[in-house]
This record gives sequence, structure tokens and C-alpha cells, in this order.
Amino acid sequence: MPSKTNDPSKKSWLPVAPDSDFPIQNIPFGVFLTREDVITIGTRIGDHAIDLGALHQLGYFQGIPLTDDIFLQDTLNDFISDGKKTWRLVRNRISEIFDIDNPALKEHQEHRKIVLFTLDEIEMQLPVHIGDYTDFYSSKEHATNIGTMFRDPENALLPNWLHIPIGYHGRSSTIIPSGKNIHRPKGQTLPKGADTPQFGPSKMVDFELEMAFITTDANKLGESIPIDEAENYIFGLVLFNDWSARDMQKWEYVPLGPFMAKNFASSVSPWIVTLDALEPFRVESPEQDPKPLPHLYQKGKNSFDIQLEVSLTPEGGIPTTITKSNFKYMYWTMAQQLTHHTSNGCKVLSGDLMGSGTISGSTPDSYGSMLELAWQGTKPITLENGEKRTSIQDYDTVTLSGFCENSGVRIGFGKVETKLLPPV
Amino acid sequence: MPSKTNDPSKKSWLPVAPDSDFPIQNIPFGVFLTREDVITIGTRIGDHAIDLGALHQLGYFQGIPLTDDIFLQDTLNDFISDGKKTWRLVRNRISEIFDIDNPALKEHQEHRKIVLFTLDEIEMQLPVHIGDYTDFYSSKEHATNIGTMFRDPENALLPNWLHIPIGYHGRSSTIIPSGKNIHRPKGQTLPKGADTPQFGPSKMVDFELEMAFITTDANKLGESIPIDEAENYIFGLVLFNDWSARDMQKWEYVPLGPFMAKNFASSVSPWIVTLDALEPFRVESPEQDPKPLPHLYQKGKNSFDIQLEVSLTPEGGIPTTITKSNFKYMYWTMAQQLTHHTSNGCKVLSGDLMGSGTISGSTPDSYGSMLELAWQGTKPITLENGEKRTSIQDYDTVTLSGFCENSGVRIGFGKVETKLLPPV
Repeated sequence: MPSKTNDPSKKSWLPVAPDSDFPIQNIPFGVFLTREDVITIGTRIGDHAIDLGALHQLGYFQGIPLTDDIFLQDTLNDFISDGKKTWRLVRNRISEIFDIDNPALKEHQEHRKIVLFTLDEIEMQLPVHIGDYTDFYSSKEHATNIGTMFRDPENALLPNWLHIPIGYHGRSSTIIPSGKNIHRPKGQTLPKGADTPQFGPSKMVDFELEMAFITTDANKLGESIPIDEAENYIFGLVLFNDWSARDMQKWEYVPLGPFMAKNFASSVSPWIVTLDALEPFRVESPEQDPKPLPHLYQKGKNSFDIQLEVSLTPEGGIPTTITKSNFKYMYWTMAQQLTHHTSNGCKVLSGDLMGSGTISGSTPDSYGSMLELAWQGTKPITLENGEKRTSIQDYDTVTLSGFCENSGVRIGFGKVETKLLPPV
Repeated sequence: MPSKTNDPSKKSWLPVAPDSDFPIQNIPFGVFLTREDVITIGTRIGDHAIDLGALHQLGYFQGIPLTDDIFLQDTLNDFISDGKKTWRLVRNRISEIFDIDNPALKEHQEHRKIVLFTLDEIEMQLPVHIGDYTDFYSSKEHATNIGTMFRDPENALLPNWLHIPIGYHGRSSTIIPSGKNIHRPKGQTLPKGADTPQFGPSKMVDFELEMAFITTDANKLGESIPIDEAENYIFGLVLFNDWSARDMQKWEYVPLGPFMAKNFASSVSPWIVTLDALEPFRVESPEQDPKPLPHLYQKGKNSFDIQLEVSLTPEGGIPTTITKSNFKYMYWTMAQQLTHHTSNGCKVLSGDLMGSGTISGSTPDSYGSMLELAWQGTKPITLENGEKRTSIQDYDTVTLSGFCENSGVRIGFGKVETKLLPPV
């Protein structure tokens, strides 16, 4: 059990600001490039990045069954394949190494120089090679808003929605880490009142506030994962911005779902926060009525209280917080999503990424997309500088952030930040 | 140009039966495992598999810029990344090595022992690591049949269908090579007349007759591929069976498209036939009316005359040919599909696989799925042994095959064969 590692009274000998997302109770995993162009797997405490490859070479993980090169890789996939027991051993050991009362590394100046980096010395990478990416659609409020706008307010939720966590496959090759800019996509749209479509830059680029979980190897082809085992196959979570081009989406999505409207880019935060770190923030998810079929039925605290926020920063301007939401609003849990995904025998592998779907709350200031916030353009958002927005404009930067907080401990995800550039 | 390699009068010193899919004019690429558990990249002439890794080590590819281990890999991805010029040099060289008038390898018994395998000595593997898999929906006849059955016969084609090659993302992790059996998937369905769904084995498992092309690295994120360059990024084609569970599909697919109804398995033929080998079989695709927008507009022969066939073999029984179709029926070409796919800047990589969608002809005996052949169960298919089928039954084997033929040369794809086993 990770209880000692999660102890709120625990302190690190590395400095951690009171509002930091990365106290010693967090210990996320990521991949970074150093100034010497070395790529390594690391963790973070406060504003220091920690080279786990170097720590391992220096013998700090002795006694934990790890291959020599497990952290000297450009993705976390192999480490994730090692399974939950190993993740926990490593996380607990890191917690010991950086405990304020442990002098081993703290007082070893030579080792510290090798192991520790300040954030300006590194560049965060995509943490995993994503074999398959699935996006769910699991916020009841979001699905209701979309159904109300695009179909029928009286029957906003489709008949299947309350029975299965609806999802679809997305594009892995265009998932990018925070900090990488994207270009406004071009595509086909049907202008209002027109008979024939046109091709050109999208006029309705949008963000979607999501979180995503990353799996380990879960099953063989044909096998399913029981609901009460599903969380064992979840390594951790990241913030996820599922960029969307609403005008393209409207034209293309019937009958096979979103395709070009989504696959130009999705952005992820670079530090994967483990389920162990999130354990103290478990909460019940919304009541499910009707009760799901037995293979999807769950009791207890199967969600997490993660406070989410999106800000929009125009070029040269200041950020405006445009929405505040919470991961706990999700109707379907991660365990239900993963169980559903494997219920037909679909094989899930280490590094697969599963998005939650847009996370909207019940009030208009908690909606998870500009489409909903500006209600299809009818209620423009006003920014701090007085500008209005109904969609994302060129050179706007969209920033998603999120954290949990209780007992004086704040476990956060950092941020995923992406600037929209004009079309290529 | 590959003209010499495609010369119909060319003969190999390896035996090739008159009805073989693999004369010296074919030279497909695949990956196989030998009895000594060695994995290698190979080609095939007649009923011999040829170890390209061994040929390269023995110096037969001298003068072609190839890394030493390019064929000693378990996927073709790196070779495909080398680009069209290299594929062509290698194919042309193989054609020279096995030319009936070339004694170099023909009379070198020691080398022949190292390089040549009979088919019973090897086991074919998945030829590429598939990073992303996209499935299109590009047969007008198929889309019309589906629209007629599920929506409105008067407006069977949706408004977008004639303007863009509609597609959706699929699951890479469950694409399997020919010969691997699959299990009947379980899933949620809404029984006729019922108010609430049930969970259990699908009662309507179906095949879909498709072909798929495999790409090389095509672009950077944000960049598009012009239509007249698109074919340069297509390495070759395989047969593709897009297994489907129709009852699950019906319940889940609105509004985000097929998901669990498709992602339990898709099967591919193991030998990738290059566009160079298919060059003599180019034909025009069906006239497109309305004319596509300029970025998708093409003239000339942009399709291929590939005769396709599906047979169904019940356990212990004989095969029944249940449909005959042709790749040339496809309304949208591969170049149009790939250009559309990158028109928003979506990044395409080596080893990505893009399915054509079900290939149906205009007559009921040329439909590409059981759903259409048995018209939603109303017109059962009679097998050679007198049994009836409206969907695939446990222990049925479905076999897709395909070939081109003219000037006395037959270039084929072999087959993709999969048996459906009961649920796990």
C-alpha cells in the first residue's frame, strides 16, 4: 500500500512551494530531454526534475526488480509493462530518497549534480508511445448539451448513452505534448445555407477539456477484464485537450463519427500522475440510473476529485479563466470505460491512452468546450482585455490545468498549454 | 520505372504454377518466422519464401543503399520508411536474382539452402507495426445498401458522402494476420422490441470484404499531401477482413460511429503487393458526379482491376464462394483517401494502414458483407452442403482472396483466412 508515501505530513529536502502541484506525495512520471540531448525517464518534486535513469545507475533502486535500461528510454511503455507492483515499489523508493530525513542523496553533492535538473534545463516529451487512442464521451452534462444543440432538446441523450460508455477511436500520430504549437486545420465544411461544401481553414476551432488515462498490458485478444480488476491496469492520468474543428465536425460526422475534425491534434500534459498518488482524493461518481448491466456495475468511490480549469491567453495578453470543472462530474468511471473496452475481447496494451470525453459541469461556467461555453456562438465569452470569443482565434493559447487538494496536500497535473497558429 | 520487372515474358528459375498469385512479376513483401524461430523479412515466388535478410547478408543487394539490418527485423516499417526509390531498387534486384537466365543464386546450392524456404517451413506474421489504422467507407454501392437498410431508401447516401471519402479511426492492436483464429465477441445489444439492452455473445457476426493500403512517412504535423503526390506514399496493398458484430453496431454507433462492433478483430493477408507490381492493372475508377473539390480532383487511371472473392467453409465442410467483387468498383481512390486524410495536417507514418471500406458491386452476388448478401437476414445464403447462413457461425472459416490478370500474368494477394471460434 502507498499509505506512507501519501502521508500528508511527509516533507522533501527539495524545496516545494505551497501552491506547487508536485509535492513529495505526487511523484509523477515523465520523459525529458536534457541540454546535452540525452533523453531519460524522470519524476518531479517542486521545480526540480529528477533523472530516474541516473538514480538507477547510481544504485538507488537496488532491490527492486528493474532491467538496467528501464529508465534510459524515450518512452515509459516498458516501465508501465512492468506492472503495478513495480510502479509502486519505485514510487515508494523515490519518496524515501527525497524524504527530508534521508541524507543519502541529499548530502551527496556529486550524485545530486547528476540526478537533479531545474525545469529550464529540460524539455518535456510525450511520456508514452501511444499504440491506440480511444476517446470516450462520458460526461452526461456534455452529451446533453451537444444533444440539445445538434439534435433534440427533448431527447438530448441518445438511447444507448445511459447503458454504455460511448467511445470512438482517435488518431495516435497527432497526440503532442504541452508546449508544441499547432496550426489551424483546413477541411471541408458546408456553409450555412449552401448546397455544396467548400474547402479551407476551419472557422470554428475549439478545445475540449478532458483527462486521459494510460494503461498497461491488460489482456490477450478475446479476453475481457472484470470491472473490479480494471484499475490495476491503469498507470495514471494526464490532462488532455482534444482539439476540435466544429464546422468540419458538423459536416463529416454522420454516420461514422468524428474524423478529420479531431485528428489534426490532441495535446497532453507531460507528467503522468499515478492512481496511487490520487488515492486520497477518491470520491463517488454520480449515481447511475438506470443501474448498469452487471459487467459494468460498481459500488464505492470510483472517481477522483480533480479540480480543472481552462484559461485562454490572446497573443501578448493576459490569461482569462474561461471555465472551471471537475473530473468527479464524469458519469462513467475509468474502470467502466476500460471494462467496456475489453468486454468484446479487444486487446489493450501498455501506453494506450483513453480520453474521458469533454468534462462539463452542470452550470454554464463549468462547461468543457467553447462550443458549450459560447452556446454555439450565441453567448460570446468576454476576455480580460475586453475581446470576445466564440471559438479559438489564431495565436490564442489554451491552457488546461488541474489539481486535487485535501489535508493540506495538493497533487497536481501541471498544465497542457498549446498555441493555435494560422494554417500552414 | 519498373517496366522490365513487370515484363509479362519474364520467367523465374523457381517453379511457378500457372494459377499462382506469385510469379516473378509480383515480388510482394512480408515477414515470416522460420522453424529455427528466426524472424526475417521476405518475399515470395511461386511456393517458395525468400529470406531477404539472408540475401542481403550474402551481398545480393550490393549497390543499393540499405542498412545492414534493414531486413533482419520483425516488421517492414523501417524498410518502408526508406521510400519508394529504395523499394523499387530492391524489387528490381530481386527480379534480376531470380530471373531464369541469372545463374548467380540459381546455381549456388549453398546460398540457395540459406535463402529459400518452402511454405510449410515458415509462419507468416503481421507485415508491419500498424501505428494508426483508418477505415474508409468508399464503395458507393455498399454505402447505398447500408443507407437503404438502416435509414431511408430514398436518401440512402448521406449529403457528405459524394464530397469526401468518409472514414473513421479503428483499432490497431487487434489487427491480426491470416491464419489466426478469433473468438465471437460479447457485447451489448438491444433485442428487437426490448426496452433495455442485454450483454452476451453477438448473434450477428459478419465479415467485410476490403482491401487496405500501407503508407510510408508522408508529412509533418500540419502539412498536407497534394493529390498528385499521394501515391508516392503508398507502399502496397493487402486483403482486409473488417470483422463486424452487426447487432452491437446497431446499438452503439449513433452518434460517434462503430467502436466495439469492429475493434475485436480485423484480419490482413500477410504479403504486401506493391503499387509497382499492380501498375499493369490500372483502370479508371467510376465517374465522380459531382466533381470533387479541386484538392481531391483527379483524372486518369487511379484504380486497379483486382478481382476479389470470399468463400465460407463450415467446420469439416467444403468452401462455398459467397461473393465476387472487384477493387475497381471503389468510388473514392486511394490517392483521394490519403489526400483527404492529410488535408487537415494529420500526420501519416510508415506502417499506417488504411482500409477501403466494404467493396460491394452493383449486383447482389457482388456484395461485400453478409449483411448485404443476406439482406439483413431476409435472404439467407445457401452453402454447398445445403446449410443456410445469414451471419457467420461458430467454426466457420472466412477466406478472402484476390488477384489481377492480363497479358497472361496473374498478380495475386494470396488470401486472408480466419476461423470464428465460440466466445472465450
